[in-house]
Amino acid sequence: MKRIADSTVRRLSVYLRFLEGSSQRGLATISSEELARRGGTTSAQVRKDLSFFGSFGKRGLGYSVPELTNSLRDILGLGREWNVIIIGAGKIGTALAQYHGFRSRGFHVAAVYDVDTGKVGSTWDGLVVRDFSQIRTEVANLGAEIAVLAVPADGAQEAADRLVEAGIKAILNFAPVQLQVPADVAVRSVNMAMELEGLSYELSTRVR
Amino acid sequence: MKRIADSTVRRLSVYLRFLEGSSQRGLATISSEELARRGGTTSAQVRKDLSFFGSFGKRGLGYSVPELTNSLRDILGLGREWNVIIIGAGKIGTALAQYHGFRSRGFHVAAVYDVDTGKVGSTWDGLVVRDFSQIRTEVANLGAEIAVLAVPADGAQEAADRLVEAGIKAILNFAPVQLQVPADVAVRSVNMAMELEGLSYELSTRVR
Repeated sequence: MKRIADSTVRRLSVYLRFLEGSSQRGLATISSEELARRGGTTSAQVRKDLSFFGSFGKRGLGYSVPELTNSLRDILGLGREWNVIIIGAGKIGTALAQYHGFRSRGFHVAAVYDVDTGKVGSTWDGLVVRDFSQIRTEVANLGAEIAVLAVPADGAQEAADRLVEAGIKAILNFAPVQLQVPADVAVRSVNMAMELEGLSYELSTRVR
Repeated sequence: MKRIADSTVRRLSVYLRFLEGSSQRGLATISSEELARRGGTTSAQVRKDLSFFGSFGKRGLGYSVPELTNSLRDILGLGREWNVIIIGAGKIGTALAQYHGFRSRGFHVAAVYDVDTGKVGSTWDGLVVRDFSQIRTEVANLGAEIAVLAVPADGAQEAADRLVEAGIKAILNFAPVQLQVPADVAVRSVNMAMELEGLSYELSTRVR
């Protein structure tokens, strides 16, 4: 299968959210123009994004909301539950562990880890904080497939190395570090300070 | 000035972080190849990204670390402090208000707002949670320029409308909603569930 750009996959997630909302409002079909408006893109881009994955919709009739919803859920791997572990029991990790948006999309937080022995053993919302030094023997038992890395920058690469050794193939990285991982490990990074810099860039550009 | 793609601006932030680290390690110059490796891109892309903003570096000598650091800080609008307000005193909002990565980049959290009168008046880390219904009269006094929107999806668009009315020109949106704002308002969105979907997509694609 052709390598699909991250930006395309992000738009599929946006389309899916809009389709789910449309389904709740009882709509049976939707046009590429409506999907485009919601996704902040063009109807040509919508059709191109979907064409990577098959043939959807009928000319002049648009897309069937339930069919396209199911297809997108399937494409995005959302037809099942994923076990997620959170590394780092700090403020960001705590907020993420309790984030409703994860569970509602099928991402189940199976465990939280920290290196700080002062935190290990404490309980959060029914989850006991586990000792990160034991991760290698525990990942398989937990069925953990995705790790959320919410540790300080200076420990992030080492933590990622331990996760890779433990068999994790997908990391959502909140540390402000470009992680080096093997080619078969997927990484997405969320850098909140960097997003703010994008805004300060925009604001500064306007007054120049 | 030519409209610069968000992806370019993100890479400038990555280069800046690497330059700051290089400076701490006492390096005086750096090559486009090193910047490219750090930014997960090519040296041609590094040269192109920088060329939008002027002429940097000397052929065969690379870039001066202090000069390029200063230029990038300036381009990204980081030569000053920005006042940020956080909307939503929930778990994500709390974590963000206390996030060290903001202050260290010159983003000062000036206030936290919520619509919940049960939260208004409570104190967090020296910040009193303010009443969002008063935002319009307070933005100017606070000197607030950037709002971080950390409210549930169903209240996000209305909160954004109130922020725009209050004069906010830049929003960092954590709600899983595509906000509709006037063209002169900059929005960046961080959708953590969507990032996880990018990973579930990758994992699913591999086993197909």
